[in-house]
Amino acid sequence: MSAEFDLIRRHFVRPMRHSALGPGDDCALIAPRPGHELAVTSDMLVSGTHFLPGTDPRRLGWKTLAVNLSDLAAMGAAPRWVTLAVSLPQVDDDWLKAFADGFFDCAARFGADLVGGDTTRGPLSLCVTAIGEIAHGAAIRRSGARDGDHIWISGQPGQAALGLAALRGTVQLDGDARASCVAALEQPQPRVALGGALTGLASAMIDVSDGLLADLGHIARASRLSATIHDDALPWQTLQSACGDQGAVRDALLAGGDDYELLFCAPASAHDALRALSRQLALPLTRIGTMDAGTPSRVRLTDLCGRELAVTRRGYDHFS
Amino acid sequence: MSAEFDLIRRHFVRPMRHSALGPGDDCALIAPRPGHELAVTSDMLVSGTHFLPGTDPRRLGWKTLAVNLSDLAAMGAAPRWVTLAVSLPQVDDDWLKAFADGFFDCAARFGADLVGGDTTRGPLSLCVTAIGEIAHGAAIRRSGARDGDHIWISGQPGQAALGLAALRGTVQLDGDARASCVAALEQPQPRVALGGALTGLASAMIDVSDGLLADLGHIARASRLSATIHDDALPWQTLQSACGDQGAVRDALLAGGDDYELLFCAPASAHDALRALSRQLALPLTRIGTMDAGTPSRVRLTDLCGRELAVTRRGYDHFS
Repeated sequence: MSAEFDLIRRHFVRPMRHSALGPGDDCALIAPRPGHELAVTSDMLVSGTHFLPGTDPRRLGWKTLAVNLSDLAAMGAAPRWVTLAVSLPQVDDDWLKAFADGFFDCAARFGADLVGGDTTRGPLSLCVTAIGEIAHGAAIRRSGARDGDHIWISGQPGQAALGLAALRGTVQLDGDARASCVAALEQPQPRVALGGALTGLASAMIDVSDGLLADLGHIARASRLSATIHDDALPWQTLQSACGDQGAVRDALLAGGDDYELLFCAPASAHDALRALSRQLALPLTRIGTMDAGTPSRVRLTDLCGRELAVTRRGYDHFS
Repeated sequence: MSAEFDLIRRHFVRPMRHSALGPGDDCALIAPRPGHELAVTSDMLVSGTHFLPGTDPRRLGWKTLAVNLSDLAAMGAAPRWVTLAVSLPQVDDDWLKAFADGFFDCAARFGADLVGGDTTRGPLSLCVTAIGEIAHGAAIRRSGARDGDHIWISGQPGQAALGLAALRGTVQLDGDARASCVAALEQPQPRVALGGALTGLASAMIDVSDGLLADLGHIARASRLSATIHDDALPWQTLQSACGDQGAVRDALLAGGDDYELLFCAPASAHDALRALSRQLALPLTRIGTMDAGTPSRVRLTDLCGRELAVTRRGYDHFS
């Protein structure tokens, strides 16, 4: 038996719930339930670009899958099947076991089967393709926002960026705040239940991976609308109590990536349903602004008086 | 607009034929036709491991997709949707254009839509997930071979390995032979039409990516049978006329990966249908051995008198 085959079998073959045929053949075999279509997304995580070398492998395994499940959540799709391709400089059994444990923790938590993949020698990088199921026609696209829709954000965006800044030593956080910010960075929680519950309520949605303003720009562009964020409505409090550096806090919330919170638009009529959903999921949902028919693709930040505030950075771009 | 977004739009967004929603949202949306299931496969190609640095980007684009479509072919599935994740050290517009042209040449040739993906900064590597459609229950697995089945191989295995040896300077090939062997390495032809036509004829199938004997071992193991290859039945002639180094020729055909020919088992009763299919597709199909109920997982090579021949190497393993 080849070393590669043995490696895959030892670490990456676990029982499956949704799949006709899983790892070990040329392909996996899957099928959506009647009346459903499939949402498909791929993300590659590269050492030094998406995570710091030396990141705890168990947390990295979780995150590698979580960022992909977040893309499914951002369409309202339920996770079903995933593939994983791993490039490794060498076989380190302890590292692989921990990585696989984290990956399967996340898979089990959100109901995804690992159905196939690839292992190869090379610089450390990880590529997941996630396939989710959604009722035909129910997917929430970026392009569906309407003039007058409210803009909402889930959870506490900005923590992951503060966590990264703390790991890099550019900000100081106290013990508890540091732990929760680093956890937000290294073990993000894909908002799968929220995404699924928002079908029929949200008109447009995206997950915040590159930065709140940058990702809102994607909705504004796809929906051909303007977006206005009310600075005072943003959830500043947790970040401000964690960190005294107000510049770092503003940058983290407005332009920090890697939180994987859901940013969505919904008509005013959905307000009460969203409040009830927030209580049901025990997950904060904050109304932070409004879509309007102004300059398409524009994203503005305004103060209480409606005056536009300057923004130095809107998000992260690997190639800028 | 971000540089990454612009990069994707400029090179990787082309018209689609099978997809409800393609690149540009959090996920693509796809659905199989009624009565069909989906075959899913992922492969990662890493510079220096799977291809030589400096490989022509157009050929690399073709191969990146072709090796995945070959996995679909090896189940009998028809290519439909693919995602592509690219890690790049820097943005080189000419390289990307050539890579995309090769990738889309292959996609158009075999009817696949590029529906999503990712671009990121990092060492050059390429990860494709390919999704194909197949009539429910018709997929050809590795595990279906029966005692007495004939073993067949398509095309001319071994050319890609000779091409790699020629590029590395370890063998000398004359001009025409060198060109065809390097083309077999850099622009492999996934046997999509053959794979689809073999549903109902072949009992087990795999594509030769790691080496003929190694890949036959996967069928033998999955089918719990023994496999015997008749050395004299193997298609030696083209390789022997291309290269005077008999050791290199033997190693290329028996253990050379990267040809992406289909290796399959079929009952004796399928013989005439396979001969007719070979003529119809203008693709050689060679009967090279027999499956039997001997020691499970064993793959033997025998001479005309049935004596076992020694084999030094059976295939390529990234981690051995």
